[in-house]
Amino acid sequence: MTVPRIPFEYGPSDKTDWNIDGIVAELRELRTRSLQARQRSGRPVKLPSRKVLTTIIEQLSTALFPNRLGSRELAPESVDYFVGHTLDTTLGVLSEEVLRELLFVAGPEDSIDEHQKKAIEITREFASRLPRIRALLETDIQAAFEGDPAARSLDEILACYPGITAVTHHRLAHELYSLGVPLVARIMAEIAHSTTGIDIHPGAKISGSFFIDHGTGVVIGETAVIGQRVRLYQAVTLGAKRFPTDENGALIKGGARHPIVEDDVVAYAGATILGRITIGKGSVIGGNVWVTRSVPPGSNITQARARNDEHDGGSGI
Amino acid sequence: MTVPRIPFEYGPSDKTDWNIDGIVAELRELRTRSLQARQRSGRPVKLPSRKVLTTIIEQLSTALFPNRLGSRELAPESVDYFVGHTLDTTLGVLSEEVLRELLFVAGPEDSIDEHQKKAIEITREFASRLPRIRALLETDIQAAFEGDPAARSLDEILACYPGITAVTHHRLAHELYSLGVPLVARIMAEIAHSTTGIDIHPGAKISGSFFIDHGTGVVIGETAVIGQRVRLYQAVTLGAKRFPTDENGALIKGGARHPIVEDDVVAYAGATILGRITIGKGSVIGGNVWVTRSVPPGSNITQARARNDEHDGGSGI
Amino acid sequence: MTVPRIPFEYGPSDKTDWNIDGIVAELRELRTRSLQARQRSGRPVKLPSRKVLTTIIEQLSTALFPNRLGSRELAPESVDYFVGHTLDTTLGVLSEEVLRELLFVAGPEDSIDEHQKKAIEITREFASRLPRIRALLETDIQAAFEGDPAARSLDEILACYPGITAVTHHRLAHELYSLGVPLVARIMAEIAHSTTGIDIHPGAKISGSFFIDHGTGVVIGETAVIGQRVRLYQAVTLGAKRFPTDENGALIKGGARHPIVEDDVVAYAGATILGRITIGKGSVIGGNVWVTRSVPPGSNITQARARNDEHDGGSGI
Amino acid sequence: MTVPRIPFEYGPSDKTDWNIDGIVAELRELRTRSLQARQRSGRPVKLPSRKVLTTIIEQLSTALFPNRLGSRELAPESVDYFVGHTLDTTLGVLSEEVLRELLFVAGPEDSIDEHQKKAIEITREFASRLPRIRALLETDIQAAFEGDPAARSLDEILACYPGITAVTHHRLAHELYSLGVPLVARIMAEIAHSTTGIDIHPGAKISGSFFIDHGTGVVIGETAVIGQRVRLYQAVTLGAKRFPTDENGALIKGGARHPIVEDDVVAYAGATILGRITIGKGSVIGGNVWVTRSVPPGSNITQARARNDEHDGGSGI
Amino acid sequence: MTVPRIPFEYGPSDKTDWNIDGIVAELRELRTRSLQARQRSGRPVKLPSRKVLTTIIEQLSTALFPNRLGSRELAPESVDYFVGHTLDTTLGVLSEEVLRELLFVAGPEDSIDEHQKKAIEITREFASRLPRIRALLETDIQAAFEGDPAARSLDEILACYPGITAVTHHRLAHELYSLGVPLVARIMAEIAHSTTGIDIHPGAKISGSFFIDHGTGVVIGETAVIGQRVRLYQAVTLGAKRFPTDENGALIKGGARHPIVEDDVVAYAGATILGRITIGKGSVIGGNVWVTRSVPPGSNITQARARNDEHDGGSGI
Amino acid sequence: MTVPRIPFEYGPSDKTDWNIDGIVAELRELRTRSLQARQRSGRPVKLPSRKVLTTIIEQLSTALFPNRLGSRELAPESVDYFVGHTLDTTLGVLSEEVLRELLFVAGPEDSIDEHQKKAIEITREFASRLPRIRALLETDIQAAFEGDPAARSLDEILACYPGITAVTHHRLAHELYSLGVPLVARIMAEIAHSTTGIDIHPGAKISGSFFIDHGTGVVIGETAVIGQRVRLYQAVTLGAKRFPTDENGALIKGGARHPIVEDDVVAYAGATILGRITIGKGSVIGGNVWVTRSVPPGSNITQARARNDEHDGGSGI
Repeated sequence: MTVPRIPFEYGPSDKTDWNIDGIVAELRELRTRSLQARQRSGRPVKLPSRKVLTTIIEQLSTALFPNRLGSRELAPESVDYFVGHTLDTTLGVLSEEVLRELLFVAGPEDSIDEHQKKAIEITREFASRLPRIRALLETDIQAAFEGDPAARSLDEILACYPGITAVTHHRLAHELYSLGVPLVARIMAEIAHSTTGIDIHPGAKISGSFFIDHGTGVVIGETAVIGQRVRLYQAVTLGAKRFPTDENGALIKGGARHPIVEDDVVAYAGATILGRITIGKGSVIGGNVWVTRSVPPGSNITQARARNDEHDGGSGI
Repeated sequence: MTVPRIPFEYGPSDKTDWNIDGIVAELRELRTRSLQARQRSGRPVKLPSRKVLTTIIEQLSTALFPNRLGSRELAPESVDYFVGHTLDTTLGVLSEEVLRELLFVAGPEDSIDEHQKKAIEITREFASRLPRIRALLETDIQAAFEGDPAARSLDEILACYPGITAVTHHRLAHELYSLGVPLVARIMAEIAHSTTGIDIHPGAKISGSFFIDHGTGVVIGETAVIGQRVRLYQAVTLGAKRFPTDENGALIKGGARHPIVEDDVVAYAGATILGRITIGKGSVIGGNVWVTRSVPPGSNITQARARNDEHDGGSGI
Repeated sequence: MTVPRIPFEYGPSDKTDWNIDGIVAELRELRTRSLQARQRSGRPVKLPSRKVLTTIIEQLSTALFPNRLGSRELAPESVDYFVGHTLDTTLGVLSEEVLRELLFVAGPEDSIDEHQKKAIEITREFASRLPRIRALLETDIQAAFEGDPAARSLDEILACYPGITAVTHHRLAHELYSLGVPLVARIMAEIAHSTTGIDIHPGAKISGSFFIDHGTGVVIGETAVIGQRVRLYQAVTLGAKRFPTDENGALIKGGARHPIVEDDVVAYAGATILGRITIGKGSVIGGNVWVTRSVPPGSNITQARARNDEHDGGSGI
Repeated sequence: MTVPRIPFEYGPSDKTDWNIDGIVAELRELRTRSLQARQRSGRPVKLPSRKVLTTIIEQLSTALFPNRLGSRELAPESVDYFVGHTLDTTLGVLSEEVLRELLFVAGPEDSIDEHQKKAIEITREFASRLPRIRALLETDIQAAFEGDPAARSLDEILACYPGITAVTHHRLAHELYSLGVPLVARIMAEIAHSTTGIDIHPGAKISGSFFIDHGTGVVIGETAVIGQRVRLYQAVTLGAKRFPTDENGALIKGGARHPIVEDDVVAYAGATILGRITIGKGSVIGGNVWVTRSVPPGSNITQARARNDEHDGGSGI
Repeated sequence: MTVPRIPFEYGPSDKTDWNIDGIVAELRELRTRSLQARQRSGRPVKLPSRKVLTTIIEQLSTALFPNRLGSRELAPESVDYFVGHTLDTTLGVLSEEVLRELLFVAGPEDSIDEHQKKAIEITREFASRLPRIRALLETDIQAAFEGDPAARSLDEILACYPGITAVTHHRLAHELYSLGVPLVARIMAEIAHSTTGIDIHPGAKISGSFFIDHGTGVVIGETAVIGQRVRLYQAVTLGAKRFPTDENGALIKGGARHPIVEDDVVAYAGATILGRITIGKGSVIGGNVWVTRSVPPGSNITQARARNDEHDGGSGI
Repeated sequence: MTVPRIPFEYGPSDKTDWNIDGIVAELRELRTRSLQARQRSGRPVKLPSRKVLTTIIEQLSTALFPNRLGSRELAPESVDYFVGHTLDTTLGVLSEEVLRELLFVAGPEDSIDEHQKKAIEITREFASRLPRIRALLETDIQAAFEGDPAARSLDEILACYPGITAVTHHRLAHELYSLGVPLVARIMAEIAHSTTGIDIHPGAKISGSFFIDHGTGVVIGETAVIGQRVRLYQAVTLGAKRFPTDENGALIKGGARHPIVEDDVVAYAGATILGRITIGKGSVIGGNVWVTRSVPPGSNITQARARNDEHDGGSGI
């Protein structure tokens, strides 16, 4: 039996308050100081919203693959109505997020009208690229099917595989990155990161038939370039080796600093590939390997041997 | 103050449309071509739904552990009503998802009635195994308690530990995999993967008292076999070493290709164990180790030593 | 066209039931036995709720950073009203979760009133520390900006970076851990773990300007101590080396068993640092390295070299 | 301050249960007896759902008037996508409710397939009449504009006037009534009744340019017939005078028993018009009048005079 | 196309605030004065919640009629689980609302424990009466079927008829009124009033086989007594004639002041019956009639005739 | 048991489509013609939204009476934060609805900036009147308490009485009507009408201490004027007698056409008072009475006698 709970007015007698007034005042003071430090006081422009962008990605995905990801009651007669309606609502919302990023980086003297027009142009151009994105994703799905012995059909790959989720987010985000709204793109990438454990910077250039299996812990950096038919397993890093700093020790931002991975490369679980090096066409990078220099086409890189301490002088495995 | 926003009819004057008609047409063309390529035109059968299966798993979990995971206002007098009601609604919905998978793989000439009956049988058999699943999970919870010095009580383990979440999903999914609905099972596994970073293929056979600590990045393959009282840490892989291909270079699907891990084995963070090898009873596999051959019972495998370049004049990274 | 689906009363004729009565009875039997085993029969006290704590963390985050994380329509005039209102509703709910933990560990003869008063005191003390937490988080955001060449502004870091999400959860959870409600704290930590793949035990002591990049697979143990300006990359583990057991083989719970990481240390992706060792000030730990002994300040630890089997006739993987 | 509430396990000591087992048993007994009495045991077919039909009506209304009732962000370019998508989803759901009614009245030996086909035919025919319904509703809106001095524009009438809401429901429900699903139609009518206080039986035949002002308490019976340009005010009843019974005293169901109201009639607030009588073209029925006989065209019916008791010595109320 | 809307920070330049601080202060002043006037300062106890009670009524209705009002997927095997689970959750919540009313009227020195026990007792007694309420409602449904020529089956009456909705609310509310929580009861009655336009005070005593047709505008007062098989039409009032006042002109609250309506009475639309009078068994009260004195059994009361001014040269309205 | 339902792809074989393309085309044609007829083509400006205004009213009500209508967990310490936060969010949203009405009536050549400024001014002025509205509502609550013998406390009146709900809506809507946004005001009034059955045009001028009991069917017209301490019962109409038309027979809109009701008048259930007449101070209008001429102060108007036909030549009641 659920006993009625006593309303709080009748709680313990020594009630005092949470001192909300005091905490509110302290937090206000911190906010004010922080805004001044960044010289943004008077301009508390809001950022694009992660929540809104999550919905946008979901909607765009159903527009790209309505039979697989859209409503299960969708009938053939009405697929186009569904796609058109979904695009219209989604693109309108996307254009607002794009506008927010443009205004966020704008100077106070900028023309608002100009930014609004630019947000429309970016969104329209992005929309025109959606069919191309779908065509690329079909090659990725095919690659997953061919690369995983556990896959039974093309259809289930779209439903199950986190690698496909991550690449879908990436291919959408990458176009927005290219069109000049890197923050919107980055938030989209982080949405996939949170869901899949796969962290692909939207700046990375990735060709078709790309497959990431399992995927947790994969990191692909901003200036990475990936060829056709590349396959990565979980926890592979395509990272930067070191970050150049200026004379004051501050990071020099931008600049190519991540690997070029040529066509048909496979990198096994935990491989760490760092710096602006080139992994030659068709190379295989073994699991848990640490690579910081270019390797020629057709290389086969593996880890040093492990020891079996129990057997002491044993010859390893 | 929130200023009223101008409705869009009064926006910039050079408005043009998103060209939705054009994009809809291009996407339709791609869909048609894709359906033809897969010879599925005329059969846009929907897959089981990840969203629906997420709810099913949550509901089954509360039916298994109503006092810990069910409504907090649940009184002893009514636990059975709660469990019975939850099972009834959940099993009905599950049987629909099972039917979807059966129809998805069916040929067009198949009897629908037959599939509907089979969906009911599978679901009923699955339901009858729920008590056994709960009994197994209790051994897992006990193992977590005994294996983690930070654990204070059995109760908190169910509430907090991602390893327990992943194993709960696995034990439910594995029964469905065994009963002939591997896609439903796989989607359930991916739900856990997304939440916990632990990727257990529903085909894996896992005995009782199984504990995964931290868990992010763990991968356990389809044909893996795991004994009693095994303990894995984050980023351990029980994977396949290579994928056999037929004369055309296409993957040969199926076939035992993942490790057998015998009773009482411990594998530390980042250990990678690949291929149909056997890790002998009671072995300890050290962190970050790469193992591709069987090891006898009682082995203790560790990584080759790291170097401190600072101290021995190494060239750094 | 969506054809009307036939209601179930008209389904296949051989319908039988799911045998719900039987399953309910079996599960009841298991529950009873389990409660008796733990000597908790008669006390099915509910745990703090993960769902409720998820909302609490979100609300506290918007109270700390209302301009960045709060409603986008928030006007300067009303920020304080928003913060005050959010704190009031959130602290009230938090105090209930705190009370649940206190009652959960209490003996049956304890005074309820006493626990209720203590829950209020803990919550009030926690609330008073919120401004300090925000101040610390500002140093973390600054560190992220300085540590990542891809970061364009301080503002986007709060919106995008999973490392910041994880540290925000940690700094809130750690205060609750210190105030005597470790289970509430642990659940908060697991919420971040699920979202970011970063697993920080709420007991860990972490100084300011802390930055985790990418983050998936990072594990930081309960008794770890981290200095100023430390930077970790994905899959770094600060773990325990071995767990001492008593004469019966049971774990001895508690006790310092995780590393001390001094100021200005950097640990690259996949580094595994285990045991109560000290990583000296300013050291750099290379990727995929396994460290189980203390290293002096200024060390530079790297992995043994990998081999290119293709070039030296190796047998491949 | 919100004090934490004590969970129920710690409530008053004399807790006993609600005796749920006993109440459940008594209610089961009543259900069983009731089903037997109606000879429906074994056929607990569910009725069409009021909740579902509420959504259907809302959706159909936005499909008929997308610019006024649809999403406010709807752009001209995409209105057709919106309308087509809305129709598709709504008609599919409607066909299920239609099927439920058909099965509800069916005998147990009926062919299910036959009913499913009939549900589709009814829904398709209904769909084809939607444009005609919209055309009729436009005449009603125009009539409201012309009949109410407070109306400022055609557009606001659709947004505000309960009479228009009721007539929209009626015109949709009436077509379904005519197509053979009177229960679905009746539930739709009751939805309007609950919202507007206007109770129009779906069987009533109502011509164009119909206007009900204020409307609360209006009742229009099943066999009423209403001509062009009729105007009714609140609390007007077009009802049955008496109900004929058979030799056993049971009601004889069906049969014309409500008024015929010819073109251009106005009935003021509270007028009660009963029986199969005819109100001649252009008549005016005054407020609070009770009419049980036909009146010729052009009549002007008013109430007997009231008295001012204060002035003629009346005794008050 | 949906154009992106400009965020408010870039709105018109002469923005000023809403003066929220000022309005908040004025409203605080009014609240304080009002609390003092009612001598309730320091006791802002919350009332029972209309929203919560709305859910309670809906839940209790599905528990009483699970096949008609419960989930459409409910299978015979699990009806009892559904009913038991629904009762448990609903009674727990109801007992909290009951406690709120008890505390609201309590003096500050009252024992809280006492009230909590009483809330439990009231709720338990109420629960035990639910089967009796269902039995009574079945007679009401039968009466509706027999009284309305448009009714086709018993089942649709529960789904459609506002009179049944109102009587269901009343029969539940009346028991709570009798058990000493008139405010909870009154709020339940007002929920029905809002939905159906039928206003039955929970104090009214109503025997079985009661039927209200159409119902909008019906008012039944607190001390009304209604016999078996009574039938009312829309806008019937069973009200008080005058309210006695004490020597200071203040209303004397309580006291029988509404009609006694004996068995088998019918009152047609708009009849107004006022004061503690008796309408004798089997009487028929005509539409729009005003009755303020008792009438003997078998009476047939009708309105004075209306005039047709058109025909007798009347002056119109 | 819930049998899995067959997905629609496997439904009856003679499936054809709903002919959505055809219906969409017909509806488009109707829309186009309708827009042209109203010369609004190219200007499909959306109206203020009923749904949004429903939320606004609810929020403003909780800001006016936070202890009675706000969250039940609201603590004294934080009432002002709640009120301030609620006002800020609500006023911002309200200003958008106000802007929509201004743009809706604007000519195409109007300055948008001008309207935006005006929307802000109207909203700010409205906000400044909120304390006055609350003060008036307190007099209404007091009047309800004094006028209804069934009322037990001031507090329950706010929670239960539909008359208070209607008057709250009216007092808010009336200020917006006066400030030049009659459509927003009208929609607010219709929200109350739908909930309570009480239809008060927002133009009506109503003094303090106003009480409507029961209320269903009450209608108060646009130009009505109501004095202090007036009391109305259900179904009272304060309406227009006739609508003047111009030489073309079109209604002349605007102009005083509803009654003036002086202080201390009571009108009983069903009284119909029509035209620009004056009901003198302190008059009592009996139930069901039809009044179309002014009555002097202190009048007592009652209905003509009813007849008892059963008793034939009986003397009536």
